[in-house]
Amino acid sequence: MDELSRLLSVARGDTQADLVLTGGRIVNTFTAEIEQADIAIAGTRIAGIGHGYEGSHRIDLNGAFIAPGLIDAHVHIESSLCVPSQFASAVVPRGITTVVADPHEIANVAGPAGVRFMADAAAGLPLEVILMAPSCVPATPMATGGGTINANTLRDLRSSGIARGLGEVMNFPGVIAADPDMLDKIAVMTGLPVDGHCPGVTGARLNAYVAAGIGSDHESVSPAEAREKLARGMYLLIREATNAPNLDALLPVVTPANARRVCFCTDDRTPLDLLRSGSIDDMVRRAIERGIDPIEAIRMATLNTAEWFGLRHLGAIAPGRAANMFVFDDLMRPQAKMVFSRGRLVASDSALTGQHDVPANQNPIGRCDVNWPNVRWDIPARGTRMRVIGSLPDQLVTEHCVMPATATVDRVEADIPRDLLKMIVIERHGKTGGSGVGFVQGFGLRRGAIAGTVAHDHHNLIALGADDLSMQSAARAAASLGGGLAVAVGETIIAHLALPVGGLMSDRPLAEVATGYQNVVAAARELGSPYKDPFMAMSFMALEVIPALKLTDQGLVDVEQFKIVDLFV
Amino acid sequence: MDELSRLLSVARGDTQADLVLTGGRIVNTFTAEIEQADIAIAGTRIAGIGHGYEGSHRIDLNGAFIAPGLIDAHVHIESSLCVPSQFASAVVPRGITTVVADPHEIANVAGPAGVRFMADAAAGLPLEVILMAPSCVPATPMATGGGTINANTLRDLRSSGIARGLGEVMNFPGVIAADPDMLDKIAVMTGLPVDGHCPGVTGARLNAYVAAGIGSDHESVSPAEAREKLARGMYLLIREATNAPNLDALLPVVTPANARRVCFCTDDRTPLDLLRSGSIDDMVRRAIERGIDPIEAIRMATLNTAEWFGLRHLGAIAPGRAANMFVFDDLMRPQAKMVFSRGRLVASDSALTGQHDVPANQNPIGRCDVNWPNVRWDIPARGTRMRVIGSLPDQLVTEHCVMPATATVDRVEADIPRDLLKMIVIERHGKTGGSGVGFVQGFGLRRGAIAGTVAHDHHNLIALGADDLSMQSAARAAASLGGGLAVAVGETIIAHLALPVGGLMSDRPLAEVATGYQNVVAAARELGSPYKDPFMAMSFMALEVIPALKLTDQGLVDVEQFKIVDLFV
Repeated sequence: MDELSRLLSVARGDTQADLVLTGGRIVNTFTAEIEQADIAIAGTRIAGIGHGYEGSHRIDLNGAFIAPGLIDAHVHIESSLCVPSQFASAVVPRGITTVVADPHEIANVAGPAGVRFMADAAAGLPLEVILMAPSCVPATPMATGGGTINANTLRDLRSSGIARGLGEVMNFPGVIAADPDMLDKIAVMTGLPVDGHCPGVTGARLNAYVAAGIGSDHESVSPAEAREKLARGMYLLIREATNAPNLDALLPVVTPANARRVCFCTDDRTPLDLLRSGSIDDMVRRAIERGIDPIEAIRMATLNTAEWFGLRHLGAIAPGRAANMFVFDDLMRPQAKMVFSRGRLVASDSALTGQHDVPANQNPIGRCDVNWPNVRWDIPARGTRMRVIGSLPDQLVTEHCVMPATATVDRVEADIPRDLLKMIVIERHGKTGGSGVGFVQGFGLRRGAIAGTVAHDHHNLIALGADDLSMQSAARAAASLGGGLAVAVGETIIAHLALPVGGLMSDRPLAEVATGYQNVVAAARELGSPYKDPFMAMSFMALEVIPALKLTDQGLVDVEQFKIVDLFV
Repeated sequence: MDELSRLLSVARGDTQADLVLTGGRIVNTFTAEIEQADIAIAGTRIAGIGHGYEGSHRIDLNGAFIAPGLIDAHVHIESSLCVPSQFASAVVPRGITTVVADPHEIANVAGPAGVRFMADAAAGLPLEVILMAPSCVPATPMATGGGTINANTLRDLRSSGIARGLGEVMNFPGVIAADPDMLDKIAVMTGLPVDGHCPGVTGARLNAYVAAGIGSDHESVSPAEAREKLARGMYLLIREATNAPNLDALLPVVTPANARRVCFCTDDRTPLDLLRSGSIDDMVRRAIERGIDPIEAIRMATLNTAEWFGLRHLGAIAPGRAANMFVFDDLMRPQAKMVFSRGRLVASDSALTGQHDVPANQNPIGRCDVNWPNVRWDIPARGTRMRVIGSLPDQLVTEHCVMPATATVDRVEADIPRDLLKMIVIERHGKTGGSGVGFVQGFGLRRGAIAGTVAHDHHNLIALGADDLSMQSAARAAASLGGGLAVAVGETIIAHLALPVGGLMSDRPLAEVATGYQNVVAAARELGSPYKDPFMAMSFMALEVIPALKLTDQGLVDVEQFKIVDLFV
């Protein structure tokens, strides 16, 4: 009997189910009611809801609630610094059984091969990873990334079934201006969901962005912005990211009449945040705490997301749907005590119940090849006034400052009393072998240096420090790990975290990675930085699409002018 | 500038719109709020919502409401007895701008060519016709239809873009039993919507039917049945058909929490019903009258339906969506006074505003070829007791009776005092040239005969009457019209209606067809039938899937035994 025939036979009651969950209180996301019935499972799918089903295994839920597995509507798994299997180990025990992932970071390192890597790395996990094809790789031509995703590669990713839609279209100015390249990329995905990213875009520009075919946004920070985007037909993906926590601000937007168009997403969560607070489960609990009806909150994390992405097999406990569910005791505070994925009990009491076909080793992906002799660390004093990146605490934007240069003989140097640190971005993808140098004010290191291979979006090797030797040590340490983060004082490496998978991710357990990350952050703070997370701050100093002045391997970028500018004025 | 670039330019306000609708109160189906803003249109689509848009044309709506065009979630256009252009002329002025049509009847006459005919006939109309591929053609092998739709032809219909999903899967026993043929047909449509049809199916059998991938149903008649189907994940298409008016019974099922999964459909409406009551507009008004929130009622007729069928360009007044809208004065009683379709004003004050690229003549479709010499009208008296179809007023089911035969010499004949009429079904598609004969009790004709080419589902030529001459006259008249309905007494034709398009539809205006239909019905009633609609009653006497005894061109069908049986016991 083929799988479908067997499913129907189990549904009819003619064949024994593989598993029957009895005595549960089902959260029905269609009716928003609680239903007391048994759930019969055949293989990976739900066969029937009702009474009288026989099964070769039975689990008595003893009156506990059971809801569809939670769905993260938008996440960059890379931000967890973990490979998908370790990410899954962290979120699945919390009841998240599906994530819609935009593998944007690894795509910047490895192009379409990076996307395929994530697809392979997710195969067989107890977490279903729905991949959206990254839409803006590279962000601009003013940095040298490791890969490119153009309309043709998108077409391949679609036709091979790897991409289920287009990931957040960050180049919103391009879309609004009808840039043919962006419109081509959207056209390739016709009929599939296209996620948006348009912070602060309203009015006529929002009309244009939506008219281009973009159907969601997760960048709203104010209720007014969120309401306008909902009214124009965008799904509102409420984001609670580590560095962009919007849940509290946006919950007042939700009404019984518009809730169907609202989903939850985490976007970027650091390992420590994931470990401590969790993921979508955390958002559901907090939404309920803040007065959202619990079933409505669960719908925002299940059915609504399934509907936006056209995932008809998800979002509900119903015949034919994937048997992805989580069990909990308190409807006002859903906390998974059992999790089922594709019909199997995969987690109980906050831990996975076993190994889940996780491939032990992934193929190597990306490169961390630095042409060391080619790297120019010193900066000839070609002028006396220079452009400086004005770093601001807890913000991605920087200021574009002009300051006197501090020169020693014929070289411009860092100047600690003025909190002027040197920064370098070194191409590491085996392309140009080039590097760009500049200065940052306000970062606060009093000595030593930090370096890493996480540098949005191109993820070149970046270092920032008080002296060249420390910078060189930190950069060489990060590179010698095959990618990672490092803190050095002089020749001594005082902390490091290996991220050998693409220079972005570790294959170690999330808790271990979280500890390692805490260590490098603490070390950087000990060197004087007042920032909560100096590594995250550094990683965005290289992102040439966020104002005002940034540094890439190609040099200083004046973001407002959208061009490379000289260090000296 | 290509169309999309121009759309975005209009949205941005950089290019003049083709049309700006000012001063309207927009029914926003996403937020369920009324929004006062202008609507800028570029070509066939909405470019922007807001203020300050300039356009080459402007229409001031003067405070009237404007809502997205209504969508009929499930209709057999053939039941209007009109070709799509005339059907459109009738429903578009009422605000219906989209119908999801299952061209099941014409497909039984002409197979996939019938489906293609409907697609061609709908091209260029102010009504968007979304075609679902008929799933059950023919209904059984116990009748000879004009065409077959199998998994391969479904594949063609899908790949050519004609079919946007699978039409109501009426063979629910086959699906539940995992009949490979039915599962193959569903598999062909993987990822597209598959409509259901499962009257009275509940419990484990409903689980099986839903598990097979069927996502909607429009056959619920009781609240309990509707609630169970909703809970299992089916979209509830509330039907208000001429002979199956379920709206009043099912509205109590709708709650603010489940309304998103509820749509409206008409299924089958007679020409007169369409003319007098209308279509989905009638359902919206009646739902509001019965206490449904008006915006919720409009959502059930717009956004919800668009979501079920994955029609992301419909269901809302929003940038990028089709500019299909209707304007009305009273939110509590929406009655279209202007209708826009694809950006053009296509109807005002209950009439189309002009010719809308309707092709004047359609290619001939189907056949009405009777091999007259081959038809056997007389019934040799091979026994004394015979099976008789027991007709019941206003019901599709019949009784399976056994009665003494009335013989004249060696022939069995009709017997008016016993209300025993003769019936014949003559193959008309140019296939076998065969015919089946039998008797009907309870139909009430005292003299003459009625005949027609509408005979579910095979649509052969059917006649029913008090004497052979009248039957022959009526049948020959219906055939000589190229298909249609006729009433005869002896050699005299006392009423007729031509349905030359496939023997099912007229290309005349709906009002004219309604009058013609009233005439043939009145004539049949004058001959003695007490039935409200003797032609509809007759047309279902030939449908071999509805219990208990039916007649096809192949003979009497015992539906419970699912086999052809002899007239004589």
